[in-house]
Amino acid sequence: MFCAIVSGTAPASVVHEDEQLIAFCDLMPINPGHLLVVPKKHAANLAELPEETGALMFPLAQRLAARIRRSPLPCDGINLSVCDGRAAGQSVFHSHLHVVPRVAGDGLGFPLHVDVRVATRSDLDQVAGLLRAEP
Amino acid sequence: MFCAIVSGTAPASVVHEDEQLIAFCDLMPINPGHLLVVPKKHAANLAELPEETGALMFPLAQRLAARIRRSPLPCDGINLSVCDGRAAGQSVFHSHLHVVPRVAGDGLGFPLHVDVRVATRSDLDQVAGLLRAEP
Repeated sequence: MFCAIVSGTAPASVVHEDEQLIAFCDLMPINPGHLLVVPKKHAANLAELPEETGALMFPLAQRLAARIRRSPLPCDGINLSVCDGRAAGQSVFHSHLHVVPRVAGDGLGFPLHVDVRVATRSDLDQVAGLLRAEP
Repeated sequence: MFCAIVSGTAPASVVHEDEQLIAFCDLMPINPGHLLVVPKKHAANLAELPEETGALMFPLAQRLAARIRRSPLPCDGINLSVCDGRAAGQSVFHSHLHVVPRVAGDGLGFPLHVDVRVATRSDLDQVAGLLRAEP
C-alpha cells in the first residue's frame, strides 16, 4: 500500500517528500496530525531497513514533531513509535515511524504501562549480558 | 537520573556505550529485554535533542532490536517508542528511545488503537496543509 503512495498511484495527504523518504497523514489518525514517516524503498520491517535510512527517519520525525507543536493542531505531547512485527501492532508490512500528537487527557494510554514493576539489578544484569555485542 | 548513569554515579545494566550514546535496561521493563537508548549529552526533549544525535539513536535501536530477536529472550515483535512530554507519557525528562520486546498475547495493547476511524481525505488534506514546510 505504501509503495503505491510512493509511486503516486494511491492517494495520500503528503507533508514531506525527499529522495529517500515520504511523510503523510495516517488514514486512521489517533489524533489529528498523526503522521507516518515512510522509506520510499520497500523494507518490510526494521531488519530490512538500511541503517542509513533509519538515520534519516528519526531526524525527519523530530522536524515533523516540531511542526505539529508549532501548528494550530491540539498537541500537548508527541509519541514517536515503530511497530515491528504483528505482535507489536504492525499492520502494514512496509516499515514506518508514527508521529502522534497527544493531548492531555486523550485517554489513549499510549504507551500503556500496566503491571510493570521495578526489576532487580541482578535480573537486569542478566538480561544485559544477553544483549551486549559479541566482543 | 540518566545523567548520573552517564557519569557512572548511578547503576545501570548497560548493553552499549559509545561517545554519543548509552543503552541500558529499563528499570521497569514492560518485558525482559526492554532497553533505553539515551543521548549522553543532556536533552530534556526532542526539541533539545540535536538531529545529528537522533540520526544515531534510531540505527542503534535497530541494532539492539536485532540483538533482542537473536537472543534467547522471548520476542515476537519490537516497539520503538519515544514519549515526548508528560501528555505523551514522558516521565524522565532526559529524552530517550524505548526498545521494547513484544510477545504475542502479552496483552500490553501497545500501541493502543481505540476509537480510531478512517478519516476523510478532505480532513487529512486540511491537516497536511497545516504541517507542510513553509515554502
